[in-house]
Amino acid sequence: MIRHTVVFTLKHQQHSLEEKRFLADARRILSAIKGVRHFEALRQISPKSDYQFGFSMEFADQRAYTAYNEHPDHVAFVRDRWVPEVEAFQEIDYVPLVLP
Amino acid sequence: MIRHTVVFTLKHQQHSLEEKRFLADARRILSAIKGVRHFEALRQISPKSDYQFGFSMEFADQRAYTAYNEHPDHVAFVRDRWVPEVEAFQEIDYVPLVLP
Repeated sequence: MIRHTVVFTLKHQQHSLEEKRFLADARRILSAIKGVRHFEALRQISPKSDYQFGFSMEFADQRAYTAYNEHPDHVAFVRDRWVPEVEAFQEIDYVPLVLP
Repeated sequence: MIRHTVVFTLKHQQHSLEEKRFLADARRILSAIKGVRHFEALRQISPKSDYQFGFSMEFADQRAYTAYNEHPDHVAFVRDRWVPEVEAFQEIDYVPLVLP
């Protein structure tokens, strides 16, 4: 299992219609892409971080993650919505750690 | 539900005994603190991030999260292990986003 997360801040004014539209569209478009499991739209609340929102999703393996990255709906979303509307972001990807 | 996450890099050499010990001790000590749910020890794998590891845990509400932060076992762990052994870290906390 690979958990792909991205924490981000939008260019839009807080609580604006544009903000709501971006978040709802992202969830609708990205969660529908083949291989995406446990998609979550999140609000970042730590005062120690400046980011506003997060998405989290899981993939069965690297092949499924790569297919998502290359999927036309993902590529179009990044080009048409992410790049123009996101101010700053950071990607963090996890796999479970095997401890003795 | 509040999901508390921290992504971090250790001062220890990769795959060292000290690294393994820190990760195993952290999991054992932190996951046993009252109110901690779904504790996960994770390896960070995105080449776009410099961090090596992550912990994720969930709390029922802010009261439970505050109690964890103030718990003597957490305070002692931060003082005796986290501060001396962690090179860099970032905290990201999430709550589910309610979308229409």
